[in-house]
Amino acid sequence: MKEVIIGFLGCGNVGGGVWNLLDNFRKEIAHRNNGLSIKVKKVLVRDVNKARSCAVPAELLTTDVEEVVSDPDISIVVEFMGGEQPATEYMLRALRAGKTVVTANKVALALNWHRLQAEAQDKNVGLYYEASVCGAIPIINVLQNSLQANRIGHMMGIINGTTNYILSRMYENGEDYQDVLGDAQRLGLAEPNPAADVEGLDAAYKLSIMASLAFHGRVPFPKVYTEGITKLTAMDISCGKEMGYVLKLLAIAKRENNTVQVRVHPTFLPATHPLSSVNGSFNAVYLQGHACQEMMLQGRGAGDMPTASAVVSDILRAATAEIHLHPTFANTAEADPSLIFNDNWQSQYFIRLSAEDKPGVLAKIAGWLAQKDVSIATMLQKGKADDDRVPLIIVTHAAPEKSLRKALESFDAQLCTVESVIRVEA
Amino acid sequence: MKEVIIGFLGCGNVGGGVWNLLDNFRKEIAHRNNGLSIKVKKVLVRDVNKARSCAVPAELLTTDVEEVVSDPDISIVVEFMGGEQPATEYMLRALRAGKTVVTANKVALALNWHRLQAEAQDKNVGLYYEASVCGAIPIINVLQNSLQANRIGHMMGIINGTTNYILSRMYENGEDYQDVLGDAQRLGLAEPNPAADVEGLDAAYKLSIMASLAFHGRVPFPKVYTEGITKLTAMDISCGKEMGYVLKLLAIAKRENNTVQVRVHPTFLPATHPLSSVNGSFNAVYLQGHACQEMMLQGRGAGDMPTASAVVSDILRAATAEIHLHPTFANTAEADPSLIFNDNWQSQYFIRLSAEDKPGVLAKIAGWLAQKDVSIATMLQKGKADDDRVPLIIVTHAAPEKSLRKALESFDAQLCTVESVIRVEA
Repeated sequence: MKEVIIGFLGCGNVGGGVWNLLDNFRKEIAHRNNGLSIKVKKVLVRDVNKARSCAVPAELLTTDVEEVVSDPDISIVVEFMGGEQPATEYMLRALRAGKTVVTANKVALALNWHRLQAEAQDKNVGLYYEASVCGAIPIINVLQNSLQANRIGHMMGIINGTTNYILSRMYENGEDYQDVLGDAQRLGLAEPNPAADVEGLDAAYKLSIMASLAFHGRVPFPKVYTEGITKLTAMDISCGKEMGYVLKLLAIAKRENNTVQVRVHPTFLPATHPLSSVNGSFNAVYLQGHACQEMMLQGRGAGDMPTASAVVSDILRAATAEIHLHPTFANTAEADPSLIFNDNWQSQYFIRLSAEDKPGVLAKIAGWLAQKDVSIATMLQKGKADDDRVPLIIVTHAAPEKSLRKALESFDAQLCTVESVIRVEA
Repeated sequence: MKEVIIGFLGCGNVGGGVWNLLDNFRKEIAHRNNGLSIKVKKVLVRDVNKARSCAVPAELLTTDVEEVVSDPDISIVVEFMGGEQPATEYMLRALRAGKTVVTANKVALALNWHRLQAEAQDKNVGLYYEASVCGAIPIINVLQNSLQANRIGHMMGIINGTTNYILSRMYENGEDYQDVLGDAQRLGLAEPNPAADVEGLDAAYKLSIMASLAFHGRVPFPKVYTEGITKLTAMDISCGKEMGYVLKLLAIAKRENNTVQVRVHPTFLPATHPLSSVNGSFNAVYLQGHACQEMMLQGRGAGDMPTASAVVSDILRAATAEIHLHPTFANTAEADPSLIFNDNWQSQYFIRLSAEDKPGVLAKIAGWLAQKDVSIATMLQKGKADDDRVPLIIVTHAAPEKSLRKALESFDAQLCTVESVIRVEA
């Protein structure tokens, strides 16, 4: 019977969930892992007197991080603090002291992966982070293990539950962004300061981790193009809906002609795409590998128990591993030199214009686009507006982002104004 | 640098795919697995002169199984033969000779898991079978690893691509079963003898494997209630469609009040259910765990390269594992004594009747159902039939299977005939 002694950094709701799972599954864990026993020895908290969602005995609680990261008995440190600091420094101290680290912290990992990984490799210990991306969805394990013999060409994810909840409601009910955001905040589905979610940063942190694993090279967070959902209107969503599109905040990683693209932005998808029916606070990752072909994993990307489920699977993996495998890319802050980033990706574009209602305007717009080699797939006039201008929707064929931007700049503002530009993926 | 020498039993399209993946990913496999090198030493084939989809050198081919299962250099034997025999016997011989076995063979595994597992545990070697269920979808790894700390309450899968292709077309186009089956056969999506697929046996083999892992107790194949799709009519599907249901052949494993149910049968699902939009030859597994909550994995459940992708991930797992973990349930042919099987499950039912068109008939039918405690959720008269009888659709509230059957037996055949009974899940 092998006993593995672990320590917690933090003990909020996820930590409490992990405590309860380890406690309730003690017998099963032992039975299914050759007698393995996991014992929590120390739990770092800010306030030892605070009421908690789990029955951690008072004598395990400490406010001194040294009691967790420097205890020679503890071989695995599980981090639940969230945020870049002090979580990163504490994890580095644990790794330096020869302890394997399990973390659910996407921010600390995305920003300091190279430092954490270097320390782990130096000390020959493990670094596990299944719970840092998409809660219970086992995307890390799938990328690292199940799809080892695949060249991943294409990965698109709905990896932020808050924005997916907001967009799902805007799509279903034609509601406005601000109204749904307010509701989501009241329901606890959006933070009082929602910026990290609605500006796409949360998704960008996660994409930087997932893309690094899919491309086997470090994709630093600043390399991810990020555009949020704050400017989306009910009008854009309803126009797209009429044309058979669903609007999602997608995290996209693509490999094309030896270059890679990593980007988070609002995206129209055909209603028939598997991701289009992923609604509410669900997360999903759709990917294509050259051998596995199309695959999609869908589930609860957040929440205390789904995240705790992923943390416990990592603790058990860490506790039973004889060798801790590490990603093979260099531990640098910069992007992997093997990856050539392309920020001039090809995409289709949905463009909503407000155009002067007189003969010849449509021909002019088509001409301005054609001059930059952007060709039109669909053009749709949406009734008549209040003033002299009519709303006009154009969906282009695939065109390079920069050509499209130049074409839009060349539009004569007297004749038409660009109201929205939304990328369309197939 | 660790070299692992392996042998193949069989080398059809999946075997060829594995050969090619191992060959093309030689550098990556070494780089990502501490210098690991996988070398195929011997390949059992029926005919050494047959043309193959991969460039296996002629000197590796053999028609003598002993050259694979008894070669002391070979530590992993990969089985691609399919069918119960001689695959099972060959795998047992390999295990007895102290070799780890990787198999893509659901039939051999479902029928002889206890023998294979016992031999593997006895010799302290591994038995890996990710590819035996749902091709590239990593459901085995997810059940064994990622969801270790979950009590799986409910698992529903579309795990047979042939029947899903047929039902998707019947649903989309209102086509008849026989017509679509013929097309599927012409397209190579159904076998010339389609019985194993359309009678639900293929799904039942896979469910027996998945349910054993989900319930941590052996669920033998004969314990799976199995009903195929051969009697389904375009009429049933279109009536269901009008009521917001999609028809799927589902493999269902549920745990309720300390009993378990394992069943494969045509099932109406609400069109909003995540499984309802899994169409064509895709496979998907939807599950609920007490911690992870809802999760769905979707992908290519068959095909040479998706299956090969799963086999290679198993080969790499087997080659790098220091300890081979085994399921912890007893290696018996019979069901695990910890599992109490319930064949009187609760379900809603869609019933299509042909009823005499006269006053009082509806009241009588409702009465016969009520006498067996089956209550009606929806009743729908579908226009007028050619003769004196009208088509009538009833959807019941949840009721025990046996009560429903008894109620149907009590119907007066003079007044109404039961045309179809299809279970409805939410």
